[in-house]
Amino acid sequence: MLQAGLLLVISAPSGAGKTTLCRLLIERAGFSFSVSHTTRSPRSGEVEGRDYYFVDRKTFEEMIRKGEFLEWAEVHGNLYGTSWEEVNRRLSSGQDLLLDIDVQGASQVRKRLGSRAIFVFIMPPSLEELERRLRGRGTEDEITVARRLARAREEMNYASWFDYVVVNDEVERAFEDLLAIVRAERCRPFRIGY
Amino acid sequence: MLQAGLLLVISAPSGAGKTTLCRLLIERAGFSFSVSHTTRSPRSGEVEGRDYYFVDRKTFEEMIRKGEFLEWAEVHGNLYGTSWEEVNRRLSSGQDLLLDIDVQGASQVRKRLGSRAIFVFIMPPSLEELERRLRGRGTEDEITVARRLARAREEMNYASWFDYVVVNDEVERAFEDLLAIVRAERCRPFRIGY
Repeated sequence: MLQAGLLLVISAPSGAGKTTLCRLLIERAGFSFSVSHTTRSPRSGEVEGRDYYFVDRKTFEEMIRKGEFLEWAEVHGNLYGTSWEEVNRRLSSGQDLLLDIDVQGASQVRKRLGSRAIFVFIMPPSLEELERRLRGRGTEDEITVARRLARAREEMNYASWFDYVVVNDEVERAFEDLLAIVRAERCRPFRIGY
Repeated sequence: MLQAGLLLVISAPSGAGKTTLCRLLIERAGFSFSVSHTTRSPRSGEVEGRDYYFVDRKTFEEMIRKGEFLEWAEVHGNLYGTSWEEVNRRLSSGQDLLLDIDVQGASQVRKRLGSRAIFVFIMPPSLEELERRLRGRGTEDEITVARRLARAREEMNYASWFDYVVVNDEVERAFEDLLAIVRAERCRPFRIGY
């Protein structure tokens, strides 16, 4: 496969600052999110093909059976997935794509794509700081904070599995790390025709 | 091995601009060259332990037998080699090291160190431009230029074997690529304790 664009797969525990860093990659580095398929109903203002591809459960399950998803998951009774056709079409046209998925999803993508995707784990500076950030939101109750911390601890065990780990102690510094990773990956021999 | 410093192995055909880029890495990015062992006699002004470790042939061959060299080669009847002890000692103390060696030497280092070293190939923008640069020096006769071009063509076949290929079309741009590679490599999980 001649792949013109980069596929950056980003995972992080909740509260590590992934959303902000993804926004910066989109606003300042020309990346865009891949559009997922989902079986959940469109919310007000959501546009087919921009926010999601909305499909019924039968269609989604048929796509699973045909192996059309790079990764998929069921969340609160709804199915979400990233189709290979969508990703491949946009990479081939030279777009740089961002996949914002959890560690399990990243592992599915790795099985399908290997080194053709770049796997980055965003790490909070410490569990203490993560707890402070989760509480700081003020929207989560104690049980939710405790559950997220336990899950973060678990996900952080997978950091060594990723190509790169970016410690998000300071957003601009972490973003510079991401820009360096993107620039370095554009120097891979197989991406420039060697 | 806990490796505090980075080991950057740089290869390039003659005329690709490797010397300038290495100088920039030393002056502006804190790298230093590893000091090689050699059997040739010191030239005027050369200092033991700074320019080379000067040893006799018997000592050098004994070091080869003991497997003490990361790489070694014979050039114009003299032996040159990089000892693992020298490299390891300086990396452990946190120094970032540069190895400026040819493709064959790089391949020896890869066998010993695998992904603990970073392999970068400096590529001239084209063979035409390389020929222009080699002639531009004005110091080489036709036969030398032809021999260097033939060797460059051969070495460029190995580009795909390197971790990164930096096309030296413009020195500052190529140097920025090298800085990005260094910054990205510092985000490798095994280098930051994951």
